[in-house]
Formats: sequence, C-alpha cells, structure tokens
Amino acid sequence: MVRVAVTGASGLVGEYLLRLLVGHPEVEVTYLSSHSSAGRPVSDVLPPLEGQLAIDFLEPTPGEIAGAADVAILAHKSSESLELAPQLLDAGLKIIDIGGEFRLKDPGLYRQWYGQEHTQPELLAEAVYGLPELYREQIRSARLVANPGCYPTSVLLPLVPLLKAGLIDPAGIRVSSASGLTGAGRTSGKLFIDVNEDMRAYAVAGHRHRPEMEQELAAATGQDIRLTFVPHLIPVNRGILSTVFAQPKGDTDPATLRRALTEAYTEEHYVRVRHSGTDVRLANVVGTNYCDIAVECQTGSGGVLVFSALDNMLKGACSQAVQNMNLLFDLDESAGIGGLGAC
Amino acid sequence: MVRVAVTGASGLVGEYLLRLLVGHPEVEVTYLSSHSSAGRPVSDVLPPLEGQLAIDFLEPTPGEIAGAADVAILAHKSSESLELAPQLLDAGLKIIDIGGEFRLKDPGLYRQWYGQEHTQPELLAEAVYGLPELYREQIRSARLVANPGCYPTSVLLPLVPLLKAGLIDPAGIRVSSASGLTGAGRTSGKLFIDVNEDMRAYAVAGHRHRPEMEQELAAATGQDIRLTFVPHLIPVNRGILSTVFAQPKGDTDPATLRRALTEAYTEEHYVRVRHSGTDVRLANVVGTNYCDIAVECQTGSGGVLVFSALDNMLKGACSQAVQNMNLLFDLDESAGIGGLGAC
Amino acid sequence: MVRVAVTGASGLVGEYLLRLLVGHPEVEVTYLSSHSSAGRPVSDVLPPLEGQLAIDFLEPTPGEIAGAADVAILAHKSSESLELAPQLLDAGLKIIDIGGEFRLKDPGLYRQWYGQEHTQPELLAEAVYGLPELYREQIRSARLVANPGCYPTSVLLPLVPLLKAGLIDPAGIRVSSASGLTGAGRTSGKLFIDVNEDMRAYAVAGHRHRPEMEQELAAATGQDIRLTFVPHLIPVNRGILSTVFAQPKGDTDPATLRRALTEAYTEEHYVRVRHSGTDVRLANVVGTNYCDIAVECQTGSGGVLVFSALDNMLKGACSQAVQNMNLLFDLDESAGIGGLGAC
Amino acid sequence: MVRVAVTGASGLVGEYLLRLLVGHPEVEVTYLSSHSSAGRPVSDVLPPLEGQLAIDFLEPTPGEIAGAADVAILAHKSSESLELAPQLLDAGLKIIDIGGEFRLKDPGLYRQWYGQEHTQPELLAEAVYGLPELYREQIRSARLVANPGCYPTSVLLPLVPLLKAGLIDPAGIRVSSASGLTGAGRTSGKLFIDVNEDMRAYAVAGHRHRPEMEQELAAATGQDIRLTFVPHLIPVNRGILSTVFAQPKGDTDPATLRRALTEAYTEEHYVRVRHSGTDVRLANVVGTNYCDIAVECQTGSGGVLVFSALDNMLKGACSQAVQNMNLLFDLDESAGIGGLGAC
Repeated sequence: MVRVAVTGASGLVGEYLLRLLVGHPEVEVTYLSSHSSAGRPVSDVLPPLEGQLAIDFLEPTPGEIAGAADVAILAHKSSESLELAPQLLDAGLKIIDIGGEFRLKDPGLYRQWYGQEHTQPELLAEAVYGLPELYREQIRSARLVANPGCYPTSVLLPLVPLLKAGLIDPAGIRVSSASGLTGAGRTSGKLFIDVNEDMRAYAVAGHRHRPEMEQELAAATGQDIRLTFVPHLIPVNRGILSTVFAQPKGDTDPATLRRALTEAYTEEHYVRVRHSGTDVRLANVVGTNYCDIAVECQTGSGGVLVFSALDNMLKGACSQAVQNMNLLFDLDESAGIGGLGAC
Repeated sequence: MVRVAVTGASGLVGEYLLRLLVGHPEVEVTYLSSHSSAGRPVSDVLPPLEGQLAIDFLEPTPGEIAGAADVAILAHKSSESLELAPQLLDAGLKIIDIGGEFRLKDPGLYRQWYGQEHTQPELLAEAVYGLPELYREQIRSARLVANPGCYPTSVLLPLVPLLKAGLIDPAGIRVSSASGLTGAGRTSGKLFIDVNEDMRAYAVAGHRHRPEMEQELAAATGQDIRLTFVPHLIPVNRGILSTVFAQPKGDTDPATLRRALTEAYTEEHYVRVRHSGTDVRLANVVGTNYCDIAVECQTGSGGVLVFSALDNMLKGACSQAVQNMNLLFDLDESAGIGGLGAC
Repeated sequence: MVRVAVTGASGLVGEYLLRLLVGHPEVEVTYLSSHSSAGRPVSDVLPPLEGQLAIDFLEPTPGEIAGAADVAILAHKSSESLELAPQLLDAGLKIIDIGGEFRLKDPGLYRQWYGQEHTQPELLAEAVYGLPELYREQIRSARLVANPGCYPTSVLLPLVPLLKAGLIDPAGIRVSSASGLTGAGRTSGKLFIDVNEDMRAYAVAGHRHRPEMEQELAAATGQDIRLTFVPHLIPVNRGILSTVFAQPKGDTDPATLRRALTEAYTEEHYVRVRHSGTDVRLANVVGTNYCDIAVECQTGSGGVLVFSALDNMLKGACSQAVQNMNLLFDLDESAGIGGLGAC
Repeated sequence: MVRVAVTGASGLVGEYLLRLLVGHPEVEVTYLSSHSSAGRPVSDVLPPLEGQLAIDFLEPTPGEIAGAADVAILAHKSSESLELAPQLLDAGLKIIDIGGEFRLKDPGLYRQWYGQEHTQPELLAEAVYGLPELYREQIRSARLVANPGCYPTSVLLPLVPLLKAGLIDPAGIRVSSASGLTGAGRTSGKLFIDVNEDMRAYAVAGHRHRPEMEQELAAATGQDIRLTFVPHLIPVNRGILSTVFAQPKGDTDPATLRRALTEAYTEEHYVRVRHSGTDVRLANVVGTNYCDIAVECQTGSGGVLVFSALDNMLKGACSQAVQNMNLLFDLDESAGIGGLGAC
C-alpha cells in the first residue's frame, strides 16, 4: 500500500481528493494537514467523508509527514508548497502539487502572474508538468509533479495534436471557457444569489492559466504562441467547457482535423474524441476523469472550432493527481479513478 | 387605448408578451389566437395570467382580428406569419412579427436558413428591422416591423458603433454566446435532467441568427462582414451573454473604444455601457429591457473583447416588441416596459 | 408625490424595494441610508439600479430623514429600527418596518426569539400587523406598520379562513416550508457550491416566525394555537412554498374547505385560490405580489393538506411593504406593484 | 464473474445501473435489452458510457437472456417484468426488479395503485423486499428481489427503529418529501423551464409509494399504520429529502430517540445517523449509497421530527440493486458501490 499524505486538505480540492483516495485499492491515507482545521476529525470538517476516514487534521510538520507517507499531495491555495516541497523531497518523498507553484518554468512569469518571487527555481526546473497524455514517461520517473490547471488541461488536450499536425494557424487562437463554481473554491465566497441564474466573464484583463497554456503549447510545438483567453462563471457545481476559435492552415477539411485527434488519442483511455461539438457536454464528463474533445468547421465562416469538456475537480485537478500518483508508483494508471464511479 | 391582437400566443413568447401587455397603461388586449389552445381561457393555458386577462384563445381569423385590433403582434414558431401578414396589412392593421419571417432581406438567404421559399418578397422589402436604437425613425412610420432575433440584438448593439468608428477590424470577428432555456422554447423539449448542471454548444455548423447579424452589420457599416458565431445552452431560465473577440484597427486604446460606445448610446435609455466586462452579467439585465455592454482589451494578447448581456425574452423579444409598438403608435417609448418592473 | 426614505437600504431587501419604488407612479425616493455604503451612489452598490436612481447612500440622521420624506421604510437586518422609529414618528413620519422588531406583541416573546429586550413596548402595542388581507382598515390609519414575515404571510393567508370557519382542528397543525436563498439574504453567506443541488432543513429547534404565526392565528380565531414548523432551503433564488398538514374537524369535505377559501378571498386581488395543490407553484407567483393557495384532502389518510406559494421578496417583503404604503397614503392599493410586472 | 443482464436498460435507471456495473470488479454485463433502442450500441444511446461498454441493445428474448446471464436486473417503466420474471426464473436466473411490480404483497393494492391485475400472485408472495437493512438474510437466499421504491427507502430506514422501540405514536405520521428530477425520469417530460426556479407538490391525492411504506411499517411493527404523504419536485438532478412529523409516545426525550437509531444501525455501513437534522442534506449523500438520518424534537411544539436523505438513483434505486445482487451472489456487500465513488 502506498502511504499518502495530503497537506492543505480541508478545502474543496482536499475533499474531492480524499473521496477518491478512500476508494483507491492500493493506497492508504496516513496523514492530513490543515492550518485552519488542525485538531479536528475529518468527518467534522468534510461531512461527506463520515464513515470513510477516521483520522484528524494536523498542523503540517515536514518530519512527521516524512515518517508517515511515501508521497505528499499538496492541495494548498497559498504558496506554502514552496516551503514544504524541498523539505519533503529531501526526506525522500515524492510530491504532487495541485496548486500552481511549480507550473510556470519561467520565474519571471511566476512573479508576474502569482505576485511574488519564486524561492525554489531549481525545483521549478526539475518539476514535470503532470499531463499524462503529454508527459507520461517523464512523470513515471519524476520526484516532483506539477499538476496542471483545469483550463489548461481542457485547452491543451485538443490543441496540441492540431498544432503539431500543422492543421491550424498558431496565430489568432481565441479561447472562451466556462467553469462551474467549484473552480472558484470556497475562499472566493461566491454566494448562491450572486451566481444562480447568472453568467459573466471574469479575469478579462488576463488569467494566470493563459501563460501556462502558452508555455505548454510552445513546448509541444516549438513555436511561440499567444492566445486570447476569456473565462466565464456559469451556475453549475462542476465542469469546464472550452470553445476555441482558430483559423485553418491551408486546405484543411473537417475529416483531416478529426483524424488528427483520433490518431493522437487512440491509445489514451481518458481522452474521448466525440463526433460532433454538440456531444462535448459537461453532462458526459462530470464525475469522471474523461476529457471529451471535438473539432468542427463552421459553414461559410471558414473558421475551425474546437470543443473540450472535463470535470474541473477531477481531470482538472484531483483524479488527474491520482493518475499522476499511479504513474509515480507504477500502479494501474486508472486505479482509484474508476470508470464512471458511483455516478 | 390601442387595441392589440396577439396570434400564436400560447407559447412562451405569448406568455411573456401578455404579462407585459396586461400592465401597459395605454393598451388593451382584445384578441388572442392559438391553434393548439383555441377555445380555452388564457388562465388555463398560461396559469401566471390567472386574474389578469379574462379572454379565450380563438382560431385565428384575419377578418375578426381586423375588427378587433389596431395592431397584431405575431408570435408564431412557424411561418404562419407569411399568410397572416398581408391580409392584416390590407385590413389596415400594423404588424410586429416576433418570429423571423421578415428579418432577412435576401429571399435566397431566407430559403437557405429557414428551409422554404419566402412567399411575400415585397413585404420583406418593406419590413423595418425593429431595433429602435438603429432604426427608430423608420419604425415610427412603418406598417410592418420585423422584431430582431435575441442573439443579433445582443451582438449588434455593441458592434455597430465600434465598426462605424473604424476601431475594430471587420474581419475575423468571433462571437461566443450563451442563452438560457427560454430561448429554446417549449417545443424544443429540453428536459431539466438533460440541461441542468450541463453546458454545451449547439448549431455549431451555422445558426440562422448569423446571417441576420451579418446583414445588419453590413447595412450599418457599408462593408461585407463575415462572423463566426457559436451559441451555447446554459442552465438558466433567461438571459443571453455574448463574448465577442475582435482585432483592433490601428493604435486603438481601451478609452477610445469605450468612448465610442458611450457616445453612441448617451441618449439611449435601454443600452447601458458598463465600465468593465465583468459588470456585464445576466443578473443585471434579466427582468428588464436593458442591454448592458462593455469593451476591454486583454493585456498581452492584443485582442479587443466586447461583452453584451440582455434578457432574451424581453429586450431579445417581448419588451423590444412593446418598445416597437410604442413607437408605431407614438406612445411613450418605455410605456408598459417599466424600469425594473416588479423585479 | 409621496416622498420615501429607505433606511438600511443596501441589502437585498433594499434592492428589491427600490426596484419597485423607482417604477411607482406616485412616489419619489428622496433619501437612502446605509452604514456600510454611506457616501456611495446607488448604482455602485446595487448595479441593477444603474440609470434608475441617481442619489447616494447617507449615514442615517433622523433629522434629515424627517426633512426629506413623508414615510420611512426601515429595511434593517439589525434592531436599529428600535432607535429610529420613535424619532421618526415624533417628527411626523409614517413608518413601515420590514424587519421583525414590531411584529411580536409580547415583549417576552420578543426577548426569547430576538435575543434582546424590546425598548419600545408602547410602539409595539401601537404597531399594526401589515397583512392587508387581515388588517386593511387598521393599516389605513396606522402610524407604524410591522410588515409581516415571509413564512407567516404564506401560512396565515390560507389557514385563517379555514380555522375561522371551524373546518380544521386547531391542534396538531404541521407546517413544512421551503424557501429560496434570497430569504437567507446576503449576510447569511450561503455559497453556491454549498446549496446548489442540495436541500436541507434549518432552524429545526424553532424559528422566530413560528410565534409570529401563532400570535396571528390566535388573534384571528380567539384560540390558543401551537404549530410545528420546519423551514427548508431549496436551490432557487426566490419563492416560498408551504405545505401544511391538518386534521379536519367533523365531516368536512373538500368542496366545503375550498369554498371557505374562495369566499374569504373573493374580493382580494392578491390572493388566488387555485383548484389543485399542484397548481400552487413558485413559478406562478415569483415576480408578483400574489399568494396562491389551495386546499385538498388526501384519499385514505383523512388528512387535510393546505398549500401556499408566494415570492418571499415581494408579497413576503417588499411589494407587501408597498401595498401597505399605498394604504397609508390612500393610493391605489396596487400602485407600483404591477400585475405581473416586467415578468 | 457474475454475468448480468439488464432489461429495459435504455432509460435513466439503466444508465446509472450500467455506470455502476462497468466498475464492479466481479461482474460482467453480458446482455442488454430495450425495445426502443434495440440494435443500437450502448454508447450511442447512453453517451456517458462511451469507452466503457461495447455491446448493443437487443430486443429482449428470455431464451437468450437465460443463456447469457446468471442474474437479470429488470429496469422497466412498464409492467413487462410480470411476463419476463417467470420465464427467467424457470430458466434458473435470479432476478432483481427495480420497477414496482413485486413490491405490494396484496394484489388488491397492486390493482388499486398500478391500475391493472397482477398476473403473478405466487411470485408476489415469493418476492423478498430488497431493503438489506431489514431483510438481509431473506435476500441472500431469494430468487426474486423487489427493489424498494426511493421514497419508501428514505422513510422506512428512520421510522422502523423508532416505531419498533415504541418511541413514537404510529398514528398521525405525516411525511413531506422532496425529490430531484431524475426521480421523475425521462418519460415524465419535465422541461427545464417548467421546473427550474420552481417547487410544487404532486400526487397530492395519493402516491403509490404510500401503501408500500404502510405495508413495510406494518410488517416491521405488527401494527396497522396509516400515513399522510406529500411528495414535491425540487430543481435538482438527484436526491430525496424526507421530513417526517410524528408525535412522541410517553416521555420520550431526544437522546432516547437518537439512541434508538444509532443502536439499530451501529453495524450498518450505509445508514449514517447524523447528530442534527440540519446535517441531513442531499449534498452529503448524492453520488453515494448512503442514507443519512436524524431525529430531533422541536422546542415548544412537542413534536418529533425525523429527517432522511439519500440519492434516489443510488440507494433509492441502482446501488441498492447492486447491494442486493452482491447479497444474492455472496459477494462483498459493497463491491461495485464504492465509498464515495469518483465523487
């Protein structure tokens, strides 16, 4: 059994991660920490876990974590990972950071978008971007995995194959995404009456997931790529839908575009290429580790449309972290993730 | 008192229209028709109107309509307006068609997007596009008003001033819109369990509101303009949010863009220019005749972002029809539309 | 024009009240106060009012209020009304308190349920309970109106006629109610992710609206009546549905029960007796000042079922306050309330 | 591996059942039938199952089912189970009927509430009511299991121990329940716009789950018990919340009531006794096989309040069917049900 510690575990990400881990057949949760909930039993803080996990939250202590666990999954909202990660790695643990601290390779970009200096530039260089469909082999042998952002996961999976195949123009790509409220988390304080029956854009001037997308598109294609990205809030609990506008390169036809996706993902279990953009729906992916994608051309406008849907709490965060953990410990990649789970 | 007939009145559009008309101080609803509900009292078919309107639905008879009313508002899902309009005009009535039969000036486009021949090309030529902010004077003296589509209203109001001022490139405009379920209507049969907690795109290959937008953008700017337009369904009852991606023309700065909007609409009561894109929300417009708009530039990407929100049942359909009716009969333009109504 | 001041006006109740008042043909809003928003323009604090009302929030000053207004509507969450009311009354204003400070006639009950001493027992004695269907004449000549609670309005309107007619047993009445999130208000801090797709009971040990119901049932029937009352939260913005279980007294049949309701409300515009319990729905009353009610008997169980629905922000709070204001100033009782409003 | 056939499998119940079965480690789905979807692959009819199950729906043929499976789970909306069950039992299969055909022991009640004659009275007598917490041993050795209704499961689990302990009065029990829209199923045709932001009661005159509850309460307590039961529709996808009003028998105190529940379920994994009624929420049970229950007394009213929550598609239907299947084949009772699943 792999012994797992989760730090910063009392938030939404912690809750969903624990719901997965308690059902994972080869894993034991041995340590939980949370500043705000230290000293309280799990079931008190996260009522859905009543009867599932009978340990208490502790104040995080690197020495104790090292003694109790083989891997630490860091689920902090803050930059606390920057302090914990080097100590836990020194103690021989493997680390998966669900926060954003180790995603942007360029410390200058980190400073710009996260508002502070990155204190661990060597670890930044070492960290592997945890998107298994792009970096599976590097993840297997990594010490430190930077779990991707939810929007980048949804955008990279369909765009990388189309760009690598040279089928769409790397310039002028526009992304309109929409997310459910779990993406905002509990700390955002979004009241029901302020978002129900509503929709609006946010982070219009710029969202930190955009440089993350641009970095990984550049890494995959060798090209400098600039996106326009507008996220929106929609009144659902979970799910991200991304609609991407692109221009075809040359005489691309719909069948060729679609083939580029199906060929890229023919061996991948968790990326499903749907026949039509209208089949790419939150309803088909929420509660699962799947990312559904499709590509279409709009009659008359000449534009290429790319669609993508995933569950922001699962493939966009927690089940992708479990997928990465399975790779780190050479377990069945789908262990503990389930097919469609208990629905 | 203006005597109003509503035909095809037993659907959602009929319901919202009647809710407005029963509160209009200078109007009397004298005739209602509906094939499916003929012979039944209004309150039976449309329970919210219990105690508000005590007449029965009839089978539509042009002669009777002409005797009973000064204006007919046609609220059909089908193309029945093509048959009713000429007879009612001959009888001296004014007409507002909330359906789409008289919007596309080119009969060829009508055939392409509505799937049948247009049998009244002369009336098509005569019809005035009922967007008061663009065609107020023509509407005042019209016999036949083609009430605009909901998506076109949301897209034309912010784009026309920016294009006329030459501030954005007419090429490469992409529109991502989202609509609540009243937009689909009752006949679409969208079940709660199939759309709640879901979001998806639809009409990806092409939606008939796109040529309507292109026609009016061309009319306003004298340029041939092609859009890419993707509508989505979101789980709310009412409201349309449109997010438009455009490229600036020359050294446009955000203040100049914003000024173009504020100057265009300084005299308009029902178009509110918001300071930020995040203030353009369904929550601020649902239940009202307002269209809220904003324009922003995204740092780093060079793109111009245009935002627009309105209530698809009100400014996108029924209260805009009442606004047009008020113009036709020289009433106070906001009569019966209210400010924020009974919330 | 009646000059209206609203104090404590920056919350949800203030917003809905102002949306009504700006459309009221015989009223002018002349003064707004709010501790938290003093110095800010209305449209800043309450964005839906943009373009509707161009005054600023002030710190409340009884002298200034008295100079500016004929009536003050108090919309405080706190007990501040206890201090404001006597000063404003002394200055000759009329007062409508939307809070609960003047509803419970017994200062002991006030202490028990509101957790503090009532400092104005004489005003408590003077205040008229503002349910127009029960106290219309007293309201007309009142100085101080205690606007009823939302749950009590929904429960009293159907129960009073049935109890007065002696058709149901005053003992053993059980009330199961459900409310949308506007009932909890902004200060309750209910996050979308904590209430969407959820339902739960609250205030199970006892809710302060229960003694209010019991007081008014006693006043109407001359009997001491004890209820069991369980409120629930449901994921909608607005609306209260109350389902009441009672026992018939004697050989009551459904037609007799229903007749008691129709006869009681035959002259009342805002209480609609529906034929069946399943017609009593939030959808038919939200956005209106109506309270829909029905009574049925369940086959085999011998029980009487009473149903009631209203909009907690309108008939349950703000439009009922306007209805009371209209009575105080001898205006048309429905002025500014509309029929079905702008939907 | 247990070979499982599911008949009537193309509806909502089929979908949720298959989502569980494809993740069950000791089960293989070998046969699916559906009249409406015969000839089509599963992933076509039930898109969430894309990539999970690669078989086609067939027209049901008892002989083929018998050859292909060890157990048949019948998921029909209609009474087709009455014809299939005897043939499949004769062929040696075990049967779990998720429909209601084998729940009411009295053929007269079946006729009254299901509107037709029961053609298999001997099987009715033989069928075991599939509530494992009450009938675990009988289920283990059964041939035919009648899976309970969703409302009865929620009401029986908390009421049976309280009644058996003599703590509440068997007379005058009132049940107010609320269900999400999956409970109505796809055939009910409930449109989003007709139930979103709405709540209403239904089946007010009587619901067929009431005699089912009364039968099982009588079986458990030896007493004739009559309930009043009012179900409501709330705008959520899944979940049932039941609020039960009862009278205490003698000097019952809250601690004694609560102890009766904790003692009854101390060994039961899927019934959780919550400390407070406000902890009994859809949010804590949706996506799981848990039924959460609590009991409280309301200060001053003397009434006992019982709360219960479960997922109508899981403990109220599909995961309870899997739990029964596990008992029938001596598998781990929680196999394939998960703890909290993939959330």
